[in-house]
Amino acid sequence: MDTKFSSAIHMLILISEAETPMTSEEIAASVGTNASYIRKITGLLKKKEIIESRQGATGYRLLIKAEELTLLEVYRAVSESEQVHVFDLHQNPNDLCIVGKHIKPVLKDVFRSIEEKAEQELRNTTLRDCMDRMRREIESRSDR
Amino acid sequence: MDTKFSSAIHMLILISEAETPMTSEEIAASVGTNASYIRKITGLLKKKEIIESRQGATGYRLLIKAEELTLLEVYRAVSESEQVHVFDLHQNPNDLCIVGKHIKPVLKDVFRSIEEKAEQELRNTTLRDCMDRMRREIESRSDR
Repeated sequence: MDTKFSSAIHMLILISEAETPMTSEEIAASVGTNASYIRKITGLLKKKEIIESRQGATGYRLLIKAEELTLLEVYRAVSESEQVHVFDLHQNPNDLCIVGKHIKPVLKDVFRSIEEKAEQELRNTTLRDCMDRMRREIESRSDR
Repeated sequence: MDTKFSSAIHMLILISEAETPMTSEEIAASVGTNASYIRKITGLLKKKEIIESRQGATGYRLLIKAEELTLLEVYRAVSESEQVHVFDLHQNPNDLCIVGKHIKPVLKDVFRSIEEKAEQELRNTTLRDCMDRMRREIESRSDR
């Protein structure tokens, strides 16, 4: 996976928190990328009805409350996949060997159970949780 | 991650189960790759004392019992990393923006907690578990 997921969380915090709506260019400046990459991500988030463009105005708005928007929904939107993918499977095990013949379904099962744990954790973490962590991070830094 | 992890599990099942010790070439034929790739993986597994070459003979043997060898140890050996890596972080958030300035530690924490769940699950799964699943897979196929 590339950095679309982490960029999307960054962007969603901006959309949720900014006092004035931000354009793709302004979001790109904060994320540290270009506006076309941001528009690619906003396109994916719109498709899944996580955000929408503001009617007759610049910027975007959330369609799901930050405390209800899970990171799993964000991941699925930007990866265009229902499942979190962690481990790659070797593609050409040899059918003539009994281990080679049966390894794929075995490893698929094992890997899936691990990926499901990651999915559970993403489902249990909301955009609001990320924003709360950021608030604590900002406060802890300003104490120093 | 590439397919070293899944290839390593395949190979370890072969090493553990084969009636006669297998050479790198024979293992490569079952995994569906070349012997130099297999030797690269056996090198990494030897370094972590998971397997050793058989003294004065071809083939390898396990140094850790299959029921004690966790997939986390295998993962760490072949990825040459202590931590399971799932999500990439965007690298250039802008320090001039308060969100850009604080996003990295926040996402690192969030991603780490998800990766730890994957690590727990890998720690709870042994090579023996994989072999048991394979046995069930073989039995269920031969019933049909």
